[in-house]
Amino acid sequence: MRIRVINPNTTRAMTDLIGRSARVVASPGVLVDAVQPTMGPASIESHYEEALAVPGILEQVALGEAEGVDGYVVACFGDPGLDAARELASGPVLGIAEAAMHAASLVARRFGIVTTLDRTRGRAHELVARYGFADACVEVRACEIPVLDLEHDPDVLARVVAESRAVVEQGAEAVVLGCAGMTALCRSVSDEVGVPVVDGVTAAVLLAQSLVAMGLRPSARGEYAPPPAKPMTGLLAGFEIMSATKHDAPFGVVRSPA
Amino acid sequence: MRIRVINPNTTRAMTDLIGRSARVVASPGVLVDAVQPTMGPASIESHYEEALAVPGILEQVALGEAEGVDGYVVACFGDPGLDAARELASGPVLGIAEAAMHAASLVARRFGIVTTLDRTRGRAHELVARYGFADACVEVRACEIPVLDLEHDPDVLARVVAESRAVVEQGAEAVVLGCAGMTALCRSVSDEVGVPVVDGVTAAVLLAQSLVAMGLRPSARGEYAPPPAKPMTGLLAGFEIMSATKHDAPFGVVRSPA
Amino acid sequence: MRIRVINPNTTRAMTDLIGRSARVVASPGVLVDAVQPTMGPASIESHYEEALAVPGILEQVALGEAEGVDGYVVACFGDPGLDAARELASGPVLGIAEAAMHAASLVARRFGIVTTLDRTRGRAHELVARYGFADACVEVRACEIPVLDLEHDPDVLARVVAESRAVVEQGAEAVVLGCAGMTALCRSVSDEVGVPVVDGVTAAVLLAQSLVAMGLRPSARGEYAPPPAKPMTGLLAGFEIMSATKHDAPFGVVRSPA
Amino acid sequence: MRIRVINPNTTRAMTDLIGRSARVVASPGVLVDAVQPTMGPASIESHYEEALAVPGILEQVALGEAEGVDGYVVACFGDPGLDAARELASGPVLGIAEAAMHAASLVARRFGIVTTLDRTRGRAHELVARYGFADACVEVRACEIPVLDLEHDPDVLARVVAESRAVVEQGAEAVVLGCAGMTALCRSVSDEVGVPVVDGVTAAVLLAQSLVAMGLRPSARGEYAPPPAKPMTGLLAGFEIMSATKHDAPFGVVRSPA
Amino acid sequence: MRIRVINPNTTRAMTDLIGRSARVVASPGVLVDAVQPTMGPASIESHYEEALAVPGILEQVALGEAEGVDGYVVACFGDPGLDAARELASGPVLGIAEAAMHAASLVARRFGIVTTLDRTRGRAHELVARYGFADACVEVRACEIPVLDLEHDPDVLARVVAESRAVVEQGAEAVVLGCAGMTALCRSVSDEVGVPVVDGVTAAVLLAQSLVAMGLRPSARGEYAPPPAKPMTGLLAGFEIMSATKHDAPFGVVRSPA
Amino acid sequence: MRIRVINPNTTRAMTDLIGRSARVVASPGVLVDAVQPTMGPASIESHYEEALAVPGILEQVALGEAEGVDGYVVACFGDPGLDAARELASGPVLGIAEAAMHAASLVARRFGIVTTLDRTRGRAHELVARYGFADACVEVRACEIPVLDLEHDPDVLARVVAESRAVVEQGAEAVVLGCAGMTALCRSVSDEVGVPVVDGVTAAVLLAQSLVAMGLRPSARGEYAPPPAKPMTGLLAGFEIMSATKHDAPFGVVRSPA
Repeated sequence: MRIRVINPNTTRAMTDLIGRSARVVASPGVLVDAVQPTMGPASIESHYEEALAVPGILEQVALGEAEGVDGYVVACFGDPGLDAARELASGPVLGIAEAAMHAASLVARRFGIVTTLDRTRGRAHELVARYGFADACVEVRACEIPVLDLEHDPDVLARVVAESRAVVEQGAEAVVLGCAGMTALCRSVSDEVGVPVVDGVTAAVLLAQSLVAMGLRPSARGEYAPPPAKPMTGLLAGFEIMSATKHDAPFGVVRSPA
Repeated sequence: MRIRVINPNTTRAMTDLIGRSARVVASPGVLVDAVQPTMGPASIESHYEEALAVPGILEQVALGEAEGVDGYVVACFGDPGLDAARELASGPVLGIAEAAMHAASLVARRFGIVTTLDRTRGRAHELVARYGFADACVEVRACEIPVLDLEHDPDVLARVVAESRAVVEQGAEAVVLGCAGMTALCRSVSDEVGVPVVDGVTAAVLLAQSLVAMGLRPSARGEYAPPPAKPMTGLLAGFEIMSATKHDAPFGVVRSPA
Repeated sequence: MRIRVINPNTTRAMTDLIGRSARVVASPGVLVDAVQPTMGPASIESHYEEALAVPGILEQVALGEAEGVDGYVVACFGDPGLDAARELASGPVLGIAEAAMHAASLVARRFGIVTTLDRTRGRAHELVARYGFADACVEVRACEIPVLDLEHDPDVLARVVAESRAVVEQGAEAVVLGCAGMTALCRSVSDEVGVPVVDGVTAAVLLAQSLVAMGLRPSARGEYAPPPAKPMTGLLAGFEIMSATKHDAPFGVVRSPA
Repeated sequence: MRIRVINPNTTRAMTDLIGRSARVVASPGVLVDAVQPTMGPASIESHYEEALAVPGILEQVALGEAEGVDGYVVACFGDPGLDAARELASGPVLGIAEAAMHAASLVARRFGIVTTLDRTRGRAHELVARYGFADACVEVRACEIPVLDLEHDPDVLARVVAESRAVVEQGAEAVVLGCAGMTALCRSVSDEVGVPVVDGVTAAVLLAQSLVAMGLRPSARGEYAPPPAKPMTGLLAGFEIMSATKHDAPFGVVRSPA
Repeated sequence: MRIRVINPNTTRAMTDLIGRSARVVASPGVLVDAVQPTMGPASIESHYEEALAVPGILEQVALGEAEGVDGYVVACFGDPGLDAARELASGPVLGIAEAAMHAASLVARRFGIVTTLDRTRGRAHELVARYGFADACVEVRACEIPVLDLEHDPDVLARVVAESRAVVEQGAEAVVLGCAGMTALCRSVSDEVGVPVVDGVTAAVLLAQSLVAMGLRPSARGEYAPPPAKPMTGLLAGFEIMSATKHDAPFGVVRSPA
Repeated sequence: MRIRVINPNTTRAMTDLIGRSARVVASPGVLVDAVQPTMGPASIESHYEEALAVPGILEQVALGEAEGVDGYVVACFGDPGLDAARELASGPVLGIAEAAMHAASLVARRFGIVTTLDRTRGRAHELVARYGFADACVEVRACEIPVLDLEHDPDVLARVVAESRAVVEQGAEAVVLGCAGMTALCRSVSDEVGVPVVDGVTAAVLLAQSLVAMGLRPSARGEYAPPPAKPMTGLLAGFEIMSATKHDAPFGVVRSPA
């Protein structure tokens, strides 16, 4: 089984970090690789950057389809392009915010989220509501460290621990880390705070391999059916879909790469 | 006052149609123009297409900022790129789904939506929930006519009327048209069905000019603050933000074009 | 186009204040007048007073119908009598709480409300829920200044600013002013707090003229159909409806004045 | 203990009917009387009529306070004026929609409502949401018989039974009767349909006497505090509150009659 | 009429205390007795204990059915076994959390809950949501006194008052006591805090007698139908249901005791 | 890694069936066994039976703790005793309803549930709401085949397919099988209906092994802390907890077996 983790930004060090975390937890027989787009922003901390990361994510899914990848993880806590990727992929696609929230809800009735910048809290709230965790999520707090500083800033652990304690104080019984770049902090934060701490990268890899093991793919009926063939022009002409054909699998389809 | 209506697809006839509807309702002294991106899909009927329409929308907003546009309308019922556009624009940005639902809720407690293809109903439901209209929206129904056939298919009116009657039968007391391409049908459907029928294009233009008149812009505090300056590479390098400076207006900012 | 702003209390100075705010924002060609009932309370700060303000509001709508008014604004933040007024009026009727919340939700994902007395917060919460803004509204705070002191109390601006900052501290990215009597404070509060601040009087006037421009009226089907002719006795005998006739407009009806 | 049932309309036959139902269920030692206002509509089937019934309800509560009544029931399914009455009364005030929904939720997870005219369904939905029964209420159906015909129309039982069966078909396991005028049908409908059927008049009388027995009154802190003394003019001058004084009971207040 | 209050734990002093509170409020002609199971935990402060209290509750309901009891109260704030008891009983079954929340919502728009240990707050939140009071319940706070210390700890009143004041500070206008063992504190807390305070034991007894007076029982259609006859083995063999027969009452059934 | 699947009823054939399904999907290195209680009902189709299945589930968890089991699955669609089991276990505990709904929500925005008897729909709705899937779950339908007939009734596949098609017709894009006894039908139903079909047994096994792989256990802070030591008497005396000690793992505890 092949699972591809897509780092939606173009920063190589972060792609490598995410890949390492992902490989640690994958079951025997599950091959995990980590890739990044050829285009887009160096990190994602705004809706603008998130929107411009999506073409690169779709590019990587289309490449993965050509290579026979079985499942995908989109490793940014804004879960960018998830619905579009599900239309394109013949296997499951998981976002790390989605995966982390699902996992947290299985070990605690109420959890909190600790994210990077305050300005990303709106998107986190939107995802919480969309995934059905509005009652479960106590609070979203920001540690105010930019994504690309997470690897270098010596205060990162202390600040994530401080915000984690703050959400526990508000009633959370587990903590969700709100950025793929925090993946290496998971155990340390848990040791310090004394509650389960969930990293979305590992959660998403394990959920993706689980769905593949169950033979589950995005429903080919309705919303996640393959996108129709249609002209695509200008700078984005390369994303044009030429044809979409359903194969004989019980559900799911083979979609043509862009 | 200048209001720009952005048709997010690349079909000229549809841009012209939308522009005509928009200009009919704008108040004296409000200049309305209608534009379309230089890139992206010919029409939007999937998440994939919606995602790939967003760069073109942002391109048009950035151009509008350079030209001093006061407010924007994104004229696709999926409200693509709305949050990103609000970060980029110094004036209000309205989606037509959002505008139509707000308007409908002011003349009827419960409304229904008649959209194009069944596969777009998922996105419509998502927007209904996000905007707070889950209790108000009785049902989303599809007339199963593709966007680009709306102008030519002789059955369009009959089918939109049939689906409109169906949502009224379910308890709706107003109908929202679920595609910018239905803008010219509004009065005819209302005459046939006997309830208020709301077209998002005109609703959004009027809401945009109203917000401008009130001096309201996307909040510069938190989520909708201007996107940070940051490297953007590859095919999308042209979207890099060089700097973002706040000016002395009471709220809102001047953002640099991409 | 004629828009009538109804101050639901009987205090002339407040009617004049509201009228001035309303006229500033109305588009060219829109005539705005401000009226007040011949009966009822001097100000509205309780459910009791709100209930007893409604007959006077309905009286003013009935008079407006006889005079050919196109749309109405009910200028009290409790939105008293809105549904009843919609049955009576052939054009749109807007409440200022409703209008302000809709406008705020278009420039910020989350807003807070600053109202007058603590005891009015329950009604504000009820309206927030009814209009679908439960997720969007962060908090309702009171500045504890009675309605009729708003024009005279020298501390008003300072206290509204303080409470506005408090809701921003809780995550609000815009502020809604919770009383028609605060209409003149809007710009000053925004200047001080640095986020969009929404005044319901101007928002409602602009939404009312927008709905008229779109040809939208309260749905004549179902809930907002004209009230049936029926005996009305005692002190309120003058409110008896003699007949209700639908005219030939595509939607809406001509209702007979009380 | 004295419980007063207020029929909010001015039709004597209905007041008598409601009074009979109320007295059947009251516990020994509980005195129940039924009154009607001196002003207002002959029946309530629109928001307009509901709004104009409220002054008469408040008049009857004020009279009841002067006479030492311990608790009140407002016997119209729109629960008109409930919040205002709670400010005025020193004892509990129950609406019949509220009481019936609470009772139904205690014997079935999901219930349906059978009301009179289709146009009243909007108000019923609003109350369902306000009282927290949105998940519990399967459907609101109308039998399309006007309130004042309920006593005379020979088809009433058959039509209420038919609509009751329809809500049971949709998953309801109990039925709420949506009009005080249906109070005498309760047992017959239950016999026919085979599920619990709840009449709001009897439910409200029993809840009111239960709250009195527990010493519970509307909270005097915040929203339901007595209305402030304030000028009231014109036709409604008689409703002016002269003073409001708290007495020494642990909660609740003595309010002055209008 | 016979109402049986079941203390779900095996502590005799608490059974006696609950019985005394229950008898004080019951109407003339209503016989109230208080019983406890022959099996299970000494008190209930965890899900584990709550689950193991349920067989004993069902045992007492089955005994009550054989003795002709008309209605039941389950006197633990976790409302353990409520749905199962409703299948078994031919009359109404009330939980004290349920009853207290319903009563509180009738005298205040928003209430708070003061419970025993922090670890029980999760269950309280779950019940708040299930019963539809998510908007009404401001907060659940714990006084951190174990159930069986409530009668002896000299600080109980002071700590319950302190937490009650804290929920009032958060906007609650009434307080719900979150444990049957607090039943005797109700009036004292109310005197201290100045808002209505609701004890679930008395609320449940009064609601149970009210439902009996209305002839309402758990719906025999669907979810609350009597449990099917079926083998039950091992330690729990005595709970086997031999047969279930419906009698001729309009709703409700005679169920055979375990 | 050891995962234990607990069939909460006492029917051996069903335990064997569930065990076979579970072992098929488990990853290499994951040992799965299937057990059943020594006490309780032969199958679970009512709240009464569900309540009486819980002691046997807790018995099996306590035994598992003594044997060093890493994670548990409770294989009944009512998810009985989940919270209590989480207090007792040092590793994750998954319900099959919970697991199936989470999995379905990852491959389709909206799903439907096909369960056994109509009377179990209430519990299914309750779980849907508790887990946050109220928006995602289109409908719960019953095929009206008792649990123990699922293996023998020749019409089972046809009836499950028919109900699955019915939920798809209502807008579901995936189907959740609402009983552990349907585990063997998953692929056949999917082949027939053409959408993803989710079996909770396999979903729960894979989620349990994923949580173990991530080092996640029920939070030891607050609600899921080990139950306190306390007397347990009568028939259930064997369930008494003697002591509970926290060990040095970053989260989770060693709990003493009953």
